[in-house]
Amino acid sequence: MKKIRIGIVGYGNVGRGAEKVVHAMPDMELVGIFTRRDPKSLDIADNRVPVFSIEDSDNMRDKIDVMLLCGGSANDLTQQCSHFAANFNVVDSFDTHAKIPEYLSSINAVAKNTTAIISAGWDPGLFSIMRLISESIIPDGATYTFWGRGVSQGHSDAIRCIEGVANAVQYTIPIDKAVTVVRSGEKPSFETRETHVRECFVVAKDGADLAHIEWQIKTMPNYFADYNTTVSFISAEELKSKHAKMPHGGTVLHSGTTGEHKHVIEFSLNLESNPEFTASVIVAYARACFKMFKKNEFGAKTVFDIPLAYLSIKDYDTIVKELL
Amino acid sequence: MKKIRIGIVGYGNVGRGAEKVVHAMPDMELVGIFTRRDPKSLDIADNRVPVFSIEDSDNMRDKIDVMLLCGGSANDLTQQCSHFAANFNVVDSFDTHAKIPEYLSSINAVAKNTTAIISAGWDPGLFSIMRLISESIIPDGATYTFWGRGVSQGHSDAIRCIEGVANAVQYTIPIDKAVTVVRSGEKPSFETRETHVRECFVVAKDGADLAHIEWQIKTMPNYFADYNTTVSFISAEELKSKHAKMPHGGTVLHSGTTGEHKHVIEFSLNLESNPEFTASVIVAYARACFKMFKKNEFGAKTVFDIPLAYLSIKDYDTIVKELL
Repeated sequence: MKKIRIGIVGYGNVGRGAEKVVHAMPDMELVGIFTRRDPKSLDIADNRVPVFSIEDSDNMRDKIDVMLLCGGSANDLTQQCSHFAANFNVVDSFDTHAKIPEYLSSINAVAKNTTAIISAGWDPGLFSIMRLISESIIPDGATYTFWGRGVSQGHSDAIRCIEGVANAVQYTIPIDKAVTVVRSGEKPSFETRETHVRECFVVAKDGADLAHIEWQIKTMPNYFADYNTTVSFISAEELKSKHAKMPHGGTVLHSGTTGEHKHVIEFSLNLESNPEFTASVIVAYARACFKMFKKNEFGAKTVFDIPLAYLSIKDYDTIVKELL
Repeated sequence: MKKIRIGIVGYGNVGRGAEKVVHAMPDMELVGIFTRRDPKSLDIADNRVPVFSIEDSDNMRDKIDVMLLCGGSANDLTQQCSHFAANFNVVDSFDTHAKIPEYLSSINAVAKNTTAIISAGWDPGLFSIMRLISESIIPDGATYTFWGRGVSQGHSDAIRCIEGVANAVQYTIPIDKAVTVVRSGEKPSFETRETHVRECFVVAKDGADLAHIEWQIKTMPNYFADYNTTVSFISAEELKSKHAKMPHGGTVLHSGTTGEHKHVIEFSLNLESNPEFTASVIVAYARACFKMFKKNEFGAKTVFDIPLAYLSIKDYDTIVKELL
């Protein structure tokens, strides 16, 4: 069987994860990693993998079946995806929920002869699948999404932007009581602060005003003001030794009824490495992407469009026999 | 919007559930219930619903968009599905796992101009989806399915066939210790008896040999011999008052790794009514079935073939905005 030829754009945490995951897939080969940085400057986990400048990609259209776009949503993907989707089959994990409809539409406009799967991570992605399945099957119900316990890069970054902060890690933690109530079959309305707490570990610069940093974090609109937030100042060494990992996860809970009978549907992830799991989802959807491309199913797609059989390395008869 | 016209074949527990669920769906109308019994003898929950003899269905091909086949797998579906799938779009929840490939192939042979979705319940069905997604995303792992706590109709029936038994209810119960070990990220190998216990409540006929009944249950091959099984003899009144409900549920757990990082994916159902939840899955897939039929996607399908957007009553833009 001819292997699916994969390119990775962006070599941050998710890009590194994708490199590892693609190497482990017997039906894929990694053609190269594309970066905006000087290719020579990249410290690649497997030094046999070629590194290219992102500009070189235009000459490699016939060498790559699917490009994995592993940049951040805020800047990289909005700038890169249209360009790549016009020339390559692509998969990304675009996760700015409010902007997904607009993003989907803009990618669809350029993916005329390519297949582009967007927002294929775990949220959006697997959690979206669960929300859709749950409310379609038990419409008389309510769906709740809890995130964590895990490191939120966006919230950690927001703290790092405060004057006097040298480094920071923020954990999002679901409140057990809220999860337990929904799991019991209730359909409560929660205030934001009743669902999650936020725990911040901050390394301050020498001479910084700690009280003022703490106040700025706790009152930051959207990010922290609506939550019960704790701030702990620690040393750079402690941050490195205790908070360098990137675990995450969460739970989608749907509580609903058919008449007088309650039903609870629950989906949970417990991930030791958020970027490696996200990369794993992207890579499985890259397989689906290439299968759809070969069937001339062009345009921008989401996890809602993909027959699940396309995710598997196994043939259809085997998944029916082994997994149905 | 024109409603999807639904017929229900079989008025057992799942058929009754389907009647209730279809009534609650604003995009569906229930055309009628089809039975092998004398239509006049059926005690229908909503007496405005017409009841037909199963033979009358052949004259109603232009009045029904999707037939829900709600009979049992062992006899009804194997006999009925081919007939109905040749003439109607159909959905069933065929659940004899070992026979699914053969069943799929036989239905596919007759569904030339119709769409037939088979095995769309929760296992097979939703649990199959979870097994497929999990192993596709984290292939270096192991998937475990636990059932219960819940009433197994098949095991209850097996006890009822023993001489001297008037009635019986059997609960399948997953063993917490096994679930906990997998949830912690381990990938153990279990003996059958390490995963579930079986709890039997039996009403004996007058003068029956209780010790012999208990021995026959506990040593019954396939059903009980490989499990730790408890048998309690109770009165008919107690069975009726304490064990008349049909709760069920279970958990699919996938424990795997990307290199040195562990990931656990968990999907759980906690259902107060097994037949009503199964009916809810069938009804959501009936919506998908009709959408596929309208796109001329004929033949026998499984949950692995269906783009998940087809399950929703909402349009695509809405699910992208609200659920992705």
